[in-house]
Amino acid sequence: MSVEETFAGQKLLALMGAELTRVARGEVDITLRFRDDLAQQSGALHAGTVAAIADTACGLAALSMMDEGSGVVSVEFKINLLAPAIGKRFVAKGRVVRAGRTLTVCTADVIADDEKLIATMLATMMRR
Amino acid sequence: MSVEETFAGQKLLALMGAELTRVARGEVDITLRFRDDLAQQSGALHAGTVAAIADTACGLAALSMMDEGSGVVSVEFKINLLAPAIGKRFVAKGRVVRAGRTLTVCTADVIADDEKLIATMLATMMRR
Amino acid sequence: MSVEETFAGQKLLALMGAELTRVARGEVDITLRFRDDLAQQSGALHAGTVAAIADTACGLAALSMMDEGSGVVSVEFKINLLAPAIGKRFVAKGRVVRAGRTLTVCTADVIADDEKLIATMLATMMRR
Amino acid sequence: MSVEETFAGQKLLALMGAELTRVARGEVDITLRFRDDLAQQSGALHAGTVAAIADTACGLAALSMMDEGSGVVSVEFKINLLAPAIGKRFVAKGRVVRAGRTLTVCTADVIADDEKLIATMLATMMRR
Repeated sequence: MSVEETFAGQKLLALMGAELTRVARGEVDITLRFRDDLAQQSGALHAGTVAAIADTACGLAALSMMDEGSGVVSVEFKINLLAPAIGKRFVAKGRVVRAGRTLTVCTADVIADDEKLIATMLATMMRR
Repeated sequence: MSVEETFAGQKLLALMGAELTRVARGEVDITLRFRDDLAQQSGALHAGTVAAIADTACGLAALSMMDEGSGVVSVEFKINLLAPAIGKRFVAKGRVVRAGRTLTVCTADVIADDEKLIATMLATMMRR
Repeated sequence: MSVEETFAGQKLLALMGAELTRVARGEVDITLRFRDDLAQQSGALHAGTVAAIADTACGLAALSMMDEGSGVVSVEFKINLLAPAIGKRFVAKGRVVRAGRTLTVCTADVIADDEKLIATMLATMMRR
Repeated sequence: MSVEETFAGQKLLALMGAELTRVARGEVDITLRFRDDLAQQSGALHAGTVAAIADTACGLAALSMMDEGSGVVSVEFKINLLAPAIGKRFVAKGRVVRAGRTLTVCTADVIADDEKLIATMLATMMRR
């Protein structure tokens, strides 16, 4: 499946209102507008929301470098929440660090309103 | 805020239909029934959904051991997705590993249909 | 290579004076006696020392469940340093959480003087 | 303690023959020459060796941005081993991603022979 088809199949991202806003070789951006129903108790985005868009950006960035016909699955990821996820628009920028035959390692930075880094992820994706 | 109040304030968890099903000192369970709109392209729960309930279980387990009046924020977490998140009912069991003055380290196992371990998390939470 | 042969080939562990003290299916213990030259600036074991024995315990626990002729390589690990690594004797207890065809996920707890948990690791190992 | 004094107090790094080769605000490089006694069973550097220099580069990068009189301790780190640590000379480049009052988040890339990225770390450091 292509990056676009894979994204379209991720119903959680549709539920959240996320959009696929950039696809290049090894680089994928996912954009999310703030919605109150994606927040935690203090009104910022929930860490699970931030993780969802960052994981998806990583997975699709990995997929963008795989042979046609490949699918991608998350093996594991680690995310640091650097600042409260407050803003109107959040972009998760997934980038491939190293593409291997089986495993691809990616990072994603999540940026609020084009200026504030609010989270960073380091993830391992697997081709299948 | 109490564990129950904090959970009630997490709108993402309400959007997902998650429930707070167990609260003990240092131990919190979050239960989620499968819904198609929480899935990824293959039909299993999205890693972001799994991370959301595991992170919440960790955060609330940490909060359950803090002084009254404390709040909790996720510093970082790492999750391994061990098997496809396929099932009817998922329980994220958050447990405190070490409670410190400022930082509390927790794990969460996510179990499908009372029998299959599908993910495990190691997380750092901060009191504020 | 067997667990014992693999351990014997790890010269860093010999340099540190670490010993392989338990091997069972999916469970390996590595024991290290405190030495001043393995410490950091405050006199506790360096996080790199703690990570070295925990990573080795994870890798060998994974190897213990693989087919004969397999080798093991660390894909990634995350470690939380829970308390200063102060003590006379440290045991890193590696345990397999899930053994897959290609990837095996392990945890390791590092315990000082048989009583104090000073670190915990969550790691991904690969068969080759 | 200064970055230089803190490095000088880390006896593990002396045992490994590592050197502090660059200190700037928020950026610290640690350089290590390959030695056979720092290796694992296949002859590459042990993951524990790689983690030790990366963790130190992260910790000292964090320390370089803290008030005088501060010390630094590793809360946790995650490292992906991207390629076998084969080479003559390894540089761990620690960089601060976000410096907070209590916690500082850092990354470190480990580069072999000035050209090959062999590992990347994402770490949380604490002031004390």
